[in-house]
Amino acid sequence: MFPEVEAVAPAVTAVFTTVLTEGPISRVALARRLDLSSAAVTKAARPLIEMGYLEELAATERTGPGAGRPASPLAIRADREFFVGVKITGDELIGVVCDLRAEVRTTAHRRLAVPQVDHVLIELGELVDELLDGPGDYRARTRRLGLAVSGDVDRSTGLVRYSPFLHWHDLPLQERVEKITGLTVTVENDVKALTTAEHWFGEGVGAESFALVTVGAGIGCGLVVNGRLVSGSHGVAGEIGHIGIDVNGPACHCGGRGCVEAIAGADAIVRQAQAAAGRPELRFDDAVALARAGDGPVGAVFARAGDAIGSGIAAVANLVGPSRIVVSGEGLAAYDLFEPHIRAGFQRQAFGAAADCPLSIRPLPFEEWARGAATVSIQALVAA
Amino acid sequence: MFPEVEAVAPAVTAVFTTVLTEGPISRVALARRLDLSSAAVTKAARPLIEMGYLEELAATERTGPGAGRPASPLAIRADREFFVGVKITGDELIGVVCDLRAEVRTTAHRRLAVPQVDHVLIELGELVDELLDGPGDYRARTRRLGLAVSGDVDRSTGLVRYSPFLHWHDLPLQERVEKITGLTVTVENDVKALTTAEHWFGEGVGAESFALVTVGAGIGCGLVVNGRLVSGSHGVAGEIGHIGIDVNGPACHCGGRGCVEAIAGADAIVRQAQAAAGRPELRFDDAVALARAGDGPVGAVFARAGDAIGSGIAAVANLVGPSRIVVSGEGLAAYDLFEPHIRAGFQRQAFGAAADCPLSIRPLPFEEWARGAATVSIQALVAA
Repeated sequence: MFPEVEAVAPAVTAVFTTVLTEGPISRVALARRLDLSSAAVTKAARPLIEMGYLEELAATERTGPGAGRPASPLAIRADREFFVGVKITGDELIGVVCDLRAEVRTTAHRRLAVPQVDHVLIELGELVDELLDGPGDYRARTRRLGLAVSGDVDRSTGLVRYSPFLHWHDLPLQERVEKITGLTVTVENDVKALTTAEHWFGEGVGAESFALVTVGAGIGCGLVVNGRLVSGSHGVAGEIGHIGIDVNGPACHCGGRGCVEAIAGADAIVRQAQAAAGRPELRFDDAVALARAGDGPVGAVFARAGDAIGSGIAAVANLVGPSRIVVSGEGLAAYDLFEPHIRAGFQRQAFGAAADCPLSIRPLPFEEWARGAATVSIQALVAA
Repeated sequence: MFPEVEAVAPAVTAVFTTVLTEGPISRVALARRLDLSSAAVTKAARPLIEMGYLEELAATERTGPGAGRPASPLAIRADREFFVGVKITGDELIGVVCDLRAEVRTTAHRRLAVPQVDHVLIELGELVDELLDGPGDYRARTRRLGLAVSGDVDRSTGLVRYSPFLHWHDLPLQERVEKITGLTVTVENDVKALTTAEHWFGEGVGAESFALVTVGAGIGCGLVVNGRLVSGSHGVAGEIGHIGIDVNGPACHCGGRGCVEAIAGADAIVRQAQAAAGRPELRFDDAVALARAGDGPVGAVFARAGDAIGSGIAAVANLVGPSRIVVSGEGLAAYDLFEPHIRAGFQRQAFGAAADCPLSIRPLPFEEWARGAATVSIQALVAA
């Protein structure tokens, strides 16, 4: 990121990351927090101030007469640089422009006729132009674009190995999009992107361990353990949807039995609700409406699904003990139907003090996924 | 550990740890491995050689004419220092003396009449004397003792918060044993101690992530993720025994339903085998004998138990993706009855490439627990 200050690069990165995620913060507090000398903090902060990424706020603290010089906290200059984030789904592109603190400045959407690669790339190029050239004039201060895609993504090479909903195999997405947009592109799995956003700018700030569970078509989980995202030695991690919680339960598309997703994924809920109501044409929204209107058998489908999700979350808590767990995702539009059963399943299966782990259960605006993508490009700037 | 070399302490610790767990290794390879300069490695190794912890092996490598000076690999002097390790169970103390490479040099046992604290401490003192003053004369080169105890242990303070099998609550075990033995004592949870031994000196060497599953009276799991042991923000981690794998299964003592331990723990197996055979006096060994003799219903109890353990292990693989998983423990004396079913349950529930994670399933000599305890005291030396 900062070639001219390579010798102190680790300290520069540490100072920048800490001010970004926990600031504003004084140099003294930074030194304590990072176990660096005051001189090292001052030296590391200087180029960041010169390049306009950090600024000194007016001194405000004064703890008493004789307490020495008032501290001037360091803060991020959020509008120093902007970042585009785009979530790619099977039928839509959701785009945002974020500032350096991951605040969303503007948003835009594109419907996709088909998830065919060339079509998606053309729409993506137009979406980026719309975001950057519209009101706000972000173009001049934007160099980076983050993309979030469901499935198996190799962030280091920007390759989408396999995305089931998009039917993409071994697509060099980063390379293709860099050519079209001229921006520096980072590609990440969508759940990991969202987890990064929560870890850097949301409820997970400063946590050594943290989990984000997403409920929707699939049921996913992003994990931070020992301060870093868990990626899995064999390319698989966070697959909470495929924990088996009912050995006699329904077969899952993955080959397992009684997986959380086979009971609580959107398709599974629709199928069970159709059977419960005896109405094979029933769709997800109909099922939600019926359950809200007090239909007993359809309500029981949501109860069982919530309980299964809660059991899966308890497995996460029992195994890795995150400091907190956020449960979100588009499936939680039916939040009221799920929440008590998620909590009940969690409380029953959480072992001892694991039950103390706070659960935040909340719906997720779709733009959050795009913000997650932008966050990954902020992270790429800091790590570069 | 080395006050006289405090300025280069991190490099000294890194060099020592790497030679200990991966050596013998040349200075050049060390520098590459640790991202240090050759000069820094030489500087860090010098005090370790002077203190007798490391030695230079005779140069053996020569890759061709003109390949420069032959490399003299650095190696641990294993007999520079010895470490006592003791596993405390409800009815026995198992003790070992290990060298610096965690090789067991001698072992000793004591039966315990009751797990009453004062009695255990007297027996422990005598056991340590027997180990150190017997043949081998380890006393002069032994300063440290590691203890492994099941349950909730605070390693940083040496407090046993709660050990169910021993009925101990809030016992300052480290302090009490230091007074009796005069040694520097480290206390750790037994599964974590065993995991540390595998991570430093066993199948987990060099792994960024790694899991050890123990099968016995309880079913436990030690996890290394992102290079470090997982301890759990709320004091709970690795509780694979309390993952719910059968929502309609038997109630567990923890309050959950269908927990792995409620199906596959030793007590659960005995209860189910008694019911299957219609013989309420049946004990664990009888159940094993019956199953081996081809008794169908009792065999099915072991099959179901193995499958439950396999499902739990798959949950570990799906969530954190360890590079490998070792399954061990005294319950695996009945290894032949469990193994195919553990593998079947794992394969069915492991998601995609998570099924590639190698499982090593093997019985565990009881001395291994004591070796784990000694390993924790070796680790304490290095980290001190």
